[in-house]
Amino acid sequence: MRYDFVSDNAAAMAPEALEALVRANAGFARSYGADAVTARAADQIRRRFDADAEVRFVTSGTAANALALAMLARPFETVLAYDEAHIRTDEAGAPGFFGQGVGLVGLPGPSGKISEAALEARLAEDEPSYRQPAAALSLTQATEYGAVYSVDELRRLIEPARVRGLKVHLDGARLANAAAAGFDLPEVPRLGVDVCILGGAKAGGSCVEAIVIFDHALAHRIDNRLKQAGQTASKARFLSAPLLGLLESGAWEGHAAHANLMARRLAAASPFRVTHAVEANMVFVEMGDAALAALKAAGWAADRFDDGSVRFVCSWQTTEALVDELAAALVAAAER
Amino acid sequence: MRYDFVSDNAAAMAPEALEALVRANAGFARSYGADAVTARAADQIRRRFDADAEVRFVTSGTAANALALAMLARPFETVLAYDEAHIRTDEAGAPGFFGQGVGLVGLPGPSGKISEAALEARLAEDEPSYRQPAAALSLTQATEYGAVYSVDELRRLIEPARVRGLKVHLDGARLANAAAAGFDLPEVPRLGVDVCILGGAKAGGSCVEAIVIFDHALAHRIDNRLKQAGQTASKARFLSAPLLGLLESGAWEGHAAHANLMARRLAAASPFRVTHAVEANMVFVEMGDAALAALKAAGWAADRFDDGSVRFVCSWQTTEALVDELAAALVAAAER
Amino acid sequence: MRYDFVSDNAAAMAPEALEALVRANAGFARSYGADAVTARAADQIRRRFDADAEVRFVTSGTAANALALAMLARPFETVLAYDEAHIRTDEAGAPGFFGQGVGLVGLPGPSGKISEAALEARLAEDEPSYRQPAAALSLTQATEYGAVYSVDELRRLIEPARVRGLKVHLDGARLANAAAAGFDLPEVPRLGVDVCILGGAKAGGSCVEAIVIFDHALAHRIDNRLKQAGQTASKARFLSAPLLGLLESGAWEGHAAHANLMARRLAAASPFRVTHAVEANMVFVEMGDAALAALKAAGWAADRFDDGSVRFVCSWQTTEALVDELAAALVAAAER
Amino acid sequence: MRYDFVSDNAAAMAPEALEALVRANAGFARSYGADAVTARAADQIRRRFDADAEVRFVTSGTAANALALAMLARPFETVLAYDEAHIRTDEAGAPGFFGQGVGLVGLPGPSGKISEAALEARLAEDEPSYRQPAAALSLTQATEYGAVYSVDELRRLIEPARVRGLKVHLDGARLANAAAAGFDLPEVPRLGVDVCILGGAKAGGSCVEAIVIFDHALAHRIDNRLKQAGQTASKARFLSAPLLGLLESGAWEGHAAHANLMARRLAAASPFRVTHAVEANMVFVEMGDAALAALKAAGWAADRFDDGSVRFVCSWQTTEALVDELAAALVAAAER
Repeated sequence: MRYDFVSDNAAAMAPEALEALVRANAGFARSYGADAVTARAADQIRRRFDADAEVRFVTSGTAANALALAMLARPFETVLAYDEAHIRTDEAGAPGFFGQGVGLVGLPGPSGKISEAALEARLAEDEPSYRQPAAALSLTQATEYGAVYSVDELRRLIEPARVRGLKVHLDGARLANAAAAGFDLPEVPRLGVDVCILGGAKAGGSCVEAIVIFDHALAHRIDNRLKQAGQTASKARFLSAPLLGLLESGAWEGHAAHANLMARRLAAASPFRVTHAVEANMVFVEMGDAALAALKAAGWAADRFDDGSVRFVCSWQTTEALVDELAAALVAAAER
Repeated sequence: MRYDFVSDNAAAMAPEALEALVRANAGFARSYGADAVTARAADQIRRRFDADAEVRFVTSGTAANALALAMLARPFETVLAYDEAHIRTDEAGAPGFFGQGVGLVGLPGPSGKISEAALEARLAEDEPSYRQPAAALSLTQATEYGAVYSVDELRRLIEPARVRGLKVHLDGARLANAAAAGFDLPEVPRLGVDVCILGGAKAGGSCVEAIVIFDHALAHRIDNRLKQAGQTASKARFLSAPLLGLLESGAWEGHAAHANLMARRLAAASPFRVTHAVEANMVFVEMGDAALAALKAAGWAADRFDDGSVRFVCSWQTTEALVDELAAALVAAAER
Repeated sequence: MRYDFVSDNAAAMAPEALEALVRANAGFARSYGADAVTARAADQIRRRFDADAEVRFVTSGTAANALALAMLARPFETVLAYDEAHIRTDEAGAPGFFGQGVGLVGLPGPSGKISEAALEARLAEDEPSYRQPAAALSLTQATEYGAVYSVDELRRLIEPARVRGLKVHLDGARLANAAAAGFDLPEVPRLGVDVCILGGAKAGGSCVEAIVIFDHALAHRIDNRLKQAGQTASKARFLSAPLLGLLESGAWEGHAAHANLMARRLAAASPFRVTHAVEANMVFVEMGDAALAALKAAGWAADRFDDGSVRFVCSWQTTEALVDELAAALVAAAER
Repeated sequence: MRYDFVSDNAAAMAPEALEALVRANAGFARSYGADAVTARAADQIRRRFDADAEVRFVTSGTAANALALAMLARPFETVLAYDEAHIRTDEAGAPGFFGQGVGLVGLPGPSGKISEAALEARLAEDEPSYRQPAAALSLTQATEYGAVYSVDELRRLIEPARVRGLKVHLDGARLANAAAAGFDLPEVPRLGVDVCILGGAKAGGSCVEAIVIFDHALAHRIDNRLKQAGQTASKARFLSAPLLGLLESGAWEGHAAHANLMARRLAAASPFRVTHAVEANMVFVEMGDAALAALKAAGWAADRFDDGSVRFVCSWQTTEALVDELAAALVAAAER
């Protein structure tokens, strides 16, 4: 089976990531994050956001998101998120585990963006003692359906949430793809995001995500928190180095731009209706069961999503030739 | 400051680990642990133990241990461990976090080994409803003080525990050093250990530890458990590859044997009294505050442990020249 | 404001409950549940179910349910329950708190009963590692909408669940009302329920619910579990005595039969459409906002439920005169 | 077996408590704590402390303490408490369960009072990321060994803790006995206690303890917190009424004064050496195994404590005749 398009984490490390990792593998270094490579990676990220943030590196998006939410909402409170947000559907209940039962309320909207009206309605609800009141809003940029929020769209969600006292989490597993699509990273702290996850794995790194904490009070004893959660890397330089390589070289954005471009190429060639605007590196198409079976029989792995469409994801490693190969397979499947 | 001897996780990846990582960085691969590299690494480990175990890879010893204990003891139960076991003193309360309050009772003993008499006395205690009764015994091999349990010593601790219905956890962060010192790995399942952590980071790998589950019932839904705990690596091949490189080449044991040898060389050269028998890769010495300050002033990082002695740790990267350099620094410090 | 019909927990203790409490208030007694009154109450309950169960008393339905679910499902698993089950909507996330993130999946159905088809569909779903697989089924008898499951209806839900390996929880906050409506309690263990909550508060007791554990293995170290959860009453006789009074006198069923009768009387007199069959002690009616406002203005507290209908609850303390008084108020409100 | 002196929770409700409970058992009332009886009980407590506190009622000291600590320390932090504090030794790990692994560090001292020097030494320790740093200090008044802290003694513990940023919890399971011994309750908020537990059960009430929160920020969403923890009583008036009866009548202090007096009478008559000054309602004596066995053989339940001494506890129900009867039994046991 070919996993080339099943997810952007099926790709290898990009050359810039691997080279930085090899470079970091020299001599002795302080462990547990106190090394120079990790410090430089954090600096790169602060520069990206043009903000004085606390930055820590963890090994999975699940841990990054769940730890961030545990900073923002207590067990008897809840987090508002998109209905099919990764934290709600694909992390095996991690927010509840790290947050000791913290709630997760789903809100609808188009292409992974939370509907303003739905958010407003939820914010206007009563908070009886027998329910979990909302303490945080979680947004995903780019969204699970490959859309990219504009700054204005984010503002119209974040402002009413903050007025009600909610904190704001941004899941940026594909933040590189959003940045490559024109989203301006320094807007993240300006908009009032409290904790942002900046993705490394899907951007061509190894298994690493950065937790970027703009509100320093939330970072109080963050190192104890991470250690207790099993997210303090002993040889931390090997966690941060691949991401450092991507960030220092600009490949973090460059590869994402390439992946976005490949997604548009694939969408243009798709014989199936594209169900969500292709603003980042993912293509969703309307595809019957027979066609999907034919595609799989031809050796291509692909998954149906919650809205029924089938997803294809591009990465730094996706070539034009590969896109054309898949497009041909799609055409063949469509003809079945 | 030089961190060469402050811990074995100050070392880089060994060449065999790095090479395997570079080799694994080719093409697309299934994510979340369903790749061939990860499968081979698990096979290597099963072969080491000559047992049909479930093997999973996580990114820190803290997570590995805490997850293992959460399989063995419930929140209202407790785990018996050495007084200064890493899980009790150096993991920021991770067992309680992953285990929702599970207890950790300390038992004394020489050089990190639990005293049989102390264990027996604890096992004989009443279990009133207002205390947390013991559900598991946790052992460390090699111990926090660089000792290596013999099979008989382990048996004399494990048997009475199992008779009382306790499960058994083995923290093998330095299992390679124990193996290199003559400890026979297939004895681990034979002795009745339920879950063993096989260390990768300190053995010359990157940030990886293997959870080895000999009792298959305990592994029920282990993948959901790991995902929820943020310990499912997306690009899992990069987690398992360095360890695979060490295991397939035999460097896992070979480097540990070298590290053990270097520790003995250092002990032999130490002007300070060595406080624990050097059976693995660590040397503990009795050193006054002035001497320690002098050593640090000379640029060598070193930590005082709970028993008052100062620790030096060797790794695959420790050369004879380096040992001699430290030994000279120790002599100089002793003369202050 | 009058709270007479807003819930059955607005009622006082029934005379049989109070008398037993007063009787229990004599001399010294062993604390923490080891007293004779508590033992007798447990015996009464075992007799009700004709089963050798472990019985413990806790002070709230929230604690009773959440502790029961923590026995049946682990943090990375989920519980299947009715969409608007009390555990899902009215307990502030208690199952997730006691169960460290355990999931709660909602299933639809009529009048609070889970639809067989919806359950079957859920049971047939895949269990990928990134979701929480189902480990338990939770049923409520009588349901949140005042319906009473027949034994056959329960069997058609429990059997497919048990075939899939799920455990079964029965929330019996209003089990007395179901029993009074003809539901045969010994069917509970026969059907394969693992843990049943037998309600005391709504049956005319004080703040007490019984946890009835039919599977003895699940009760292992139950007293440590309860103590840790803050649910071991020091002066336990005062927790169990009111319930003992109700059970020994038969008032537990007798008062429930009366409450059910009063509900039918109220339904018969309602000028508003009754939206759910009145099988227990609750009446739900379709009532516009103006009418509800008029009713409240007339001094009667009443709440709108998730399905939009307005609920009225009868108890042992509800008299015919009171029903007629409310009915008149409803008629007046309807005329507005 | 006679349980008269084994604990003060072996006693029944005092007449004032029972009468208030019977009085509260009239008509309908709002549930979940919104009733008039509960409001009056809270007022009584605010008056006792001469402070504007948030007051809530829960059903066990275990829950009261564990919830209070969860307000004051996060999972990766620790609480400093007396070595044998009830929260450390007798609550089955409840603080860790409610606080998701929060630590509990023991400090030594005489007769249950924390030693100032030990506290200072602990406060001066480093806070490495792999340990749980101290976030709260927990004190017990009267102590587990029947001593009563003076205001000055408390100040000398609380001030250095607060200077280091720690919050303060006071476990007042026997606060009535301390008050009766001359401890001035309004000093509690003045000293900087953040959350105080005011005991009801041991003071002659039923199963009730009050959580008194002086820092209003800590009380944010306290009702959601309690509901989630299973500590919101449905028929709350029956929880608060007995305590209200004790407080309104002054019996809360009066009975405690009597219990303290009975303890002094017992101490005076004890043929065994009294091991702790009798400042509240408990007597600890040095008693050999043979004597203890003889006492038990004579029908008196008694427990040996962690320091080896045997404890006898007086309550409102302890009469002079009863004390003399026990004293005679002690003399007989001493002669064996």
